[in-house]
Amino acid sequence: MPQPDHLTRLKPVDSPEIGEEMEAYFQKCRDKLGMVPNVLQAYALRPAKLAAFAKLYNEIMLADSGLSKLEREMIAVVVSSANRCYYCLVAHGQAVRALSGDPQLGEMMVMNYRVAKLTARERAMLDFVWKLTSSPQEIAESDREELRAQGFTEEDIFDICDTAGFFNYTNRVAHGIDMMPNPEYHALNRT
Amino acid sequence: MPQPDHLTRLKPVDSPEIGEEMEAYFQKCRDKLGMVPNVLQAYALRPAKLAAFAKLYNEIMLADSGLSKLEREMIAVVVSSANRCYYCLVAHGQAVRALSGDPQLGEMMVMNYRVAKLTARERAMLDFVWKLTSSPQEIAESDREELRAQGFTEEDIFDICDTAGFFNYTNRVAHGIDMMPNPEYHALNRT
Amino acid sequence: MPQPDHLTRLKPVDSPEIGEEMEAYFQKCRDKLGMVPNVLQAYALRPAKLAAFAKLYNEIMLADSGLSKLEREMIAVVVSSANRCYYCLVAHGQAVRALSGDPQLGEMMVMNYRVAKLTARERAMLDFVWKLTSSPQEIAESDREELRAQGFTEEDIFDICDTAGFFNYTNRVAHGIDMMPNPEYHALNRT
Amino acid sequence: MPQPDHLTRLKPVDSPEIGEEMEAYFQKCRDKLGMVPNVLQAYALRPAKLAAFAKLYNEIMLADSGLSKLEREMIAVVVSSANRCYYCLVAHGQAVRALSGDPQLGEMMVMNYRVAKLTARERAMLDFVWKLTSSPQEIAESDREELRAQGFTEEDIFDICDTAGFFNYTNRVAHGIDMMPNPEYHALNRT
Amino acid sequence: MPQPDHLTRLKPVDSPEIGEEMEAYFQKCRDKLGMVPNVLQAYALRPAKLAAFAKLYNEIMLADSGLSKLEREMIAVVVSSANRCYYCLVAHGQAVRALSGDPQLGEMMVMNYRVAKLTARERAMLDFVWKLTSSPQEIAESDREELRAQGFTEEDIFDICDTAGFFNYTNRVAHGIDMMPNPEYHALNRT
Amino acid sequence: MPQPDHLTRLKPVDSPEIGEEMEAYFQKCRDKLGMVPNVLQAYALRPAKLAAFAKLYNEIMLADSGLSKLEREMIAVVVSSANRCYYCLVAHGQAVRALSGDPQLGEMMVMNYRVAKLTARERAMLDFVWKLTSSPQEIAESDREELRAQGFTEEDIFDICDTAGFFNYTNRVAHGIDMMPNPEYHALNRT
Repeated sequence: MPQPDHLTRLKPVDSPEIGEEMEAYFQKCRDKLGMVPNVLQAYALRPAKLAAFAKLYNEIMLADSGLSKLEREMIAVVVSSANRCYYCLVAHGQAVRALSGDPQLGEMMVMNYRVAKLTARERAMLDFVWKLTSSPQEIAESDREELRAQGFTEEDIFDICDTAGFFNYTNRVAHGIDMMPNPEYHALNRT
Repeated sequence: MPQPDHLTRLKPVDSPEIGEEMEAYFQKCRDKLGMVPNVLQAYALRPAKLAAFAKLYNEIMLADSGLSKLEREMIAVVVSSANRCYYCLVAHGQAVRALSGDPQLGEMMVMNYRVAKLTARERAMLDFVWKLTSSPQEIAESDREELRAQGFTEEDIFDICDTAGFFNYTNRVAHGIDMMPNPEYHALNRT
Repeated sequence: MPQPDHLTRLKPVDSPEIGEEMEAYFQKCRDKLGMVPNVLQAYALRPAKLAAFAKLYNEIMLADSGLSKLEREMIAVVVSSANRCYYCLVAHGQAVRALSGDPQLGEMMVMNYRVAKLTARERAMLDFVWKLTSSPQEIAESDREELRAQGFTEEDIFDICDTAGFFNYTNRVAHGIDMMPNPEYHALNRT
Repeated sequence: MPQPDHLTRLKPVDSPEIGEEMEAYFQKCRDKLGMVPNVLQAYALRPAKLAAFAKLYNEIMLADSGLSKLEREMIAVVVSSANRCYYCLVAHGQAVRALSGDPQLGEMMVMNYRVAKLTARERAMLDFVWKLTSSPQEIAESDREELRAQGFTEEDIFDICDTAGFFNYTNRVAHGIDMMPNPEYHALNRT
Repeated sequence: MPQPDHLTRLKPVDSPEIGEEMEAYFQKCRDKLGMVPNVLQAYALRPAKLAAFAKLYNEIMLADSGLSKLEREMIAVVVSSANRCYYCLVAHGQAVRALSGDPQLGEMMVMNYRVAKLTARERAMLDFVWKLTSSPQEIAESDREELRAQGFTEEDIFDICDTAGFFNYTNRVAHGIDMMPNPEYHALNRT
Repeated sequence: MPQPDHLTRLKPVDSPEIGEEMEAYFQKCRDKLGMVPNVLQAYALRPAKLAAFAKLYNEIMLADSGLSKLEREMIAVVVSSANRCYYCLVAHGQAVRALSGDPQLGEMMVMNYRVAKLTARERAMLDFVWKLTSSPQEIAESDREELRAQGFTEEDIFDICDTAGFFNYTNRVAHGIDMMPNPEYHALNRT
């Protein structure tokens, strides 16, 4: 799979060293994933931000939560679908395929989550996330009640908002600097 | 100024201790600002996220950058205006009033930044930020060129995207849980 | 508070005298409010329209109605929030602060009326007004029924439509000529 | 042509007399137009507003202005097309057909003004009006410069904004109470 | 009624003969309607497409269906109203006037179908069609259930989607090449 | 790859035979593609429409044209991306991967065509198509001039409009009846 011709559209600059802790983290990525996700390489332009960003990312996507990792990845993709963010759709679409073992589910999250055969819990979560992304000012207590009716706890609702919010952040960084995903994602977990 | 009747619309739960480091940080807020910003109190529901969030926030808003602190606060308010986020408009609108010494400028950022008498640099930055918030998929190289033409460096462009992205995140957390700002902000820096 | 550098973006022209009646009215404004609202000064460019506009304005905002003056000012601000009209948000936001004695209420009307703790009557009125402003073609009998269910009479419904309609008018005049509000409004009724 | 089954969706109420001046005005309408326009009959519910409304309407549409009466009617229809207001499209669409002697022009203003063969002056005016109606907060000095480049004076620009603003008002009254136009308009000036 | 100055904005080219079958069809149009609809003349630029287009058009609009011809024409106009397509509004607006014998109904379909006094069946059909045109990705099983509740069969639902879809096609061809309708439509069936 | 649990959301009905010609066409599909595309199976509900639809489809996508087959498939996917149509994104996304030999290009067309490295000709074509789909009433002569400047002939412009229009049609049929694509597409041409 050919590498894209740019990591971002920012022009190359002499940036400071990312430091030992981040070098170790990048190596861990290489060992575990076979690559350093391009988003981390992009943040290396501003090393003081890189560590804070990576820490928050890991807290949101990997730490203990009432939301499963698949649910968090589904949120990531649906937010990115609303915002049409190529980077996050490619990277997190692959994660949905991998965690669910269902390639069609990954495509559905990317293209239009409404066609997927979801549990009522999943559908309520993703409808909330779509609305929070597209017309956040219209979220009302009735929307939170829909989540509670599906068994989401108060902490879960916080995590849904936090996760959906976070990808509204990364989507805009990716669009803002035209960040390209690692090409390895495309062919993974297709069958 | 009366306290709002809720911090967020999440129901009270027994949440874990926020830990020593965060207790110290809250105390520092009390000492320096006379209050703990409600967003931090809200994140205390998920203490493991609180530290990461606070660290990233401080990196974005307070660390060294080619963008002045006022510019970063202007970005925060304009993003929040596009998203109609009450919490962030109140808290960061006050910051614009305080840092600029110009109460009308704060109001203009809240209500419609296009009426403000801005430098060409500020206007280009805020037009970019509005577009990145409202139709992120339409950002193009020509938009970045507008920023470069105003003297923004590659790192500055990164920081503009990162800051605008971050408030697209916090706006959605605030909307998602109906987070109320500390009432102290309202009367500050009005003249 | 410094005066803005322009009243409107229209270039100065020799305009006819506004006439005795309007001179007296302007003097009355000075005596009562300490200023002539800039909107009236702007209409002085077309004196034949000034009197008709002022008369209709006073009929809508000050004459007897089933809607309180505060309710009419809340409508003015919510319409102006939907349209992001700086002039009307500043001038009528101050009126909401003054009439309600609640500075936070004024800010909420400006920034996002949905976060305010309103009576069911107020909320129904403002939801109607937001919809009539943003997607007027979708107003249906069911929307009017919501108003009737809150005790609004047929005349009240007429007045809600008339008031909301009127600020959709003034918002567009203000945007169209970039009309600046009197700076005195900013600091008033903040505590 | 059958009468519609309702004038507005407001329920009949005992409303006060409209007074001698307005009775005379209604008679003048009957004499001159063969009917009392339904909008005036609707405002008769609130007689104190009727006179002020009629006066402002006549000032805007009939008084001396750098804009021709046809131009003002074209503005009325294009605003009403953006807002999809049945009442104003029927009543002012007929006025465009009558004043221009061109039935196709009336239909084009109603359906999509962009297909009409217009002078550059007319097109600039209507593009401004569409934008002022649909996204008023985006009007900028460059939009006014387009008008000036077509020979519009400062007073003309004021009148364009005032006229466009006014129909954003009446469109919302008509939508808000579901006001039906007099059926006589439909068949007039079709050939 | 004067002819428009262009059939489409495509520049004249030497196009191939349309062939015997289509010549005969054009003659049949002249005999029956007194004109060849301009859309067919426009497709003559690409004769291989003309026959297929005409066949599908006739199948959709004229063949047996659970939808009456008037219902299909109402769908055509409402889709074209959402898309503001001058060609189809003129041509199919006339068809609604002709088939219904109600000139006001034709105008209502063009300007805002929501003001028309419709049967519950017609209203459900047109609400579905408006949504399918404006936000197709939001159509859900509940929308189809609304149609079934009005007595539409599965084949009828297919035909509603097919007809609405088809005019979303023709509207875009007409906009894309700026296709003008035959002027004869304007004056027909006005009383 | 598992079959979806529904072809469409229409309930099974006894539908007439599709006839000999279409049976032969379905067999040809099976022989050539290894499947009958689900859209054809869905149209079999209305056999009289099936033949006309298939003929027009083939004329648009397979017949001689100044547009290459890949260009036509790119148009299909970009229209379907704007409309978020799962069926067409899956089926025609695969066609872009197959015809281009570039799996990333297929994904880019689906997710956000603006990130793709395109020729100026392709980019102009797809920008036109996106606009024709999303805001057809705003297409102007200047948009056609952009196409001509890239070497597109008048017939090519017709074909671009016709192809883009056609997928605005099929997208709405697919959304309207919730049509699922054949699962075989997903895994094809991924590397």
